[in-house]
Amino acid sequence: MELLKERILKDGTIEEGNILKVDSFLNHQLDISLLNEIGKEFRRRFPEKIDKILTIETSGIGIAAIAAQYFNTPVVYARKIDSKNLEKDVYETKVYSYTKGKEYTVKVGKKYLNKEEKILVIDDFLANGKALEGLIDIISQAGASLVGAGIVIEKGFQEGGQDLRNKGIKIESLAIIESLSDGRVIFK
Amino acid sequence: MELLKERILKDGTIEEGNILKVDSFLNHQLDISLLNEIGKEFRRRFPEKIDKILTIETSGIGIAAIAAQYFNTPVVYARKIDSKNLEKDVYETKVYSYTKGKEYTVKVGKKYLNKEEKILVIDDFLANGKALEGLIDIISQAGASLVGAGIVIEKGFQEGGQDLRNKGIKIESLAIIESLSDGRVIFK
Repeated sequence: MELLKERILKDGTIEEGNILKVDSFLNHQLDISLLNEIGKEFRRRFPEKIDKILTIETSGIGIAAIAAQYFNTPVVYARKIDSKNLEKDVYETKVYSYTKGKEYTVKVGKKYLNKEEKILVIDDFLANGKALEGLIDIISQAGASLVGAGIVIEKGFQEGGQDLRNKGIKIESLAIIESLSDGRVIFK
Repeated sequence: MELLKERILKDGTIEEGNILKVDSFLNHQLDISLLNEIGKEFRRRFPEKIDKILTIETSGIGIAAIAAQYFNTPVVYARKIDSKNLEKDVYETKVYSYTKGKEYTVKVGKKYLNKEEKILVIDDFLANGKALEGLIDIISQAGASLVGAGIVIEKGFQEGGQDLRNKGIKIESLAIIESLSDGRVIFK
């Protein structure tokens, strides 16, 4: 998606440890016009019947909420923390975060994912794929059906996307980064 | 807002400790059509010039993102956690959470709130008002100007909303709950 790539080149910054920061439009400040274009592009790439969009807190929520308008579906966001306000009756799975260097639990209330529903996963980043694998596990526990995953930015130099595609999962990433070396973003 | 009150009566549940759960449409699963109606209503109640919407992770994000479409503004969400991906150059404040029984730090990258910008705060709940006070403190640190706060559900039996209104802050709550006693939701 050219508009997105141009924006990454213009406003993205690269921090120590090959971390691409897109806080000015995707992660901390949200450019709602851009998110609408992203939502339209996800719809174009996933013309299939979709019953529900599943994402994961925190940074997936704004993207998924705007995109859902083009699918006419609700959004469910998986929660990473124990919260007093969350259902006791949940599907849960463990996810290892390389960014945070620890394992955490991801939960979705059972009543929000139903058998045979067609689920599109949307998230901001795909790198090692652990969060996405966790969501896929939860979808499977629910007996729902994964249509695919719409990702805004994939780190193509990490193995997550390729591993999941090799398992037959449809993954559509709007910008795939081949390299972040020397402080420059190179797209695939 | 009648549509919202009807939905709370239909799908909200009351848990131990006077916790109103609206996970089926506002906090865990998002009803995007309802969020659009909420966004329109916020615009109707805040016809003022707004430069930016400020909310706080997690549950404010989806509401603010959809509402921002009616204001043509970006959204900034304050972060509650230390994250490798967040700006080092931040405004921060301490907020005590009664729900979680602990104090946490709320941060906004300095470049995302600018002097003299007109800021609308949007959040899902207002109870004791501590989170909202924290956001107001951050807006003040930035030298930006608070237009007001748009709240989806206010617990009118807690003091936060009244205290802040007494300070002259414009607070518009779309549903104000007078009581949750005996397992029933009574609106003001």
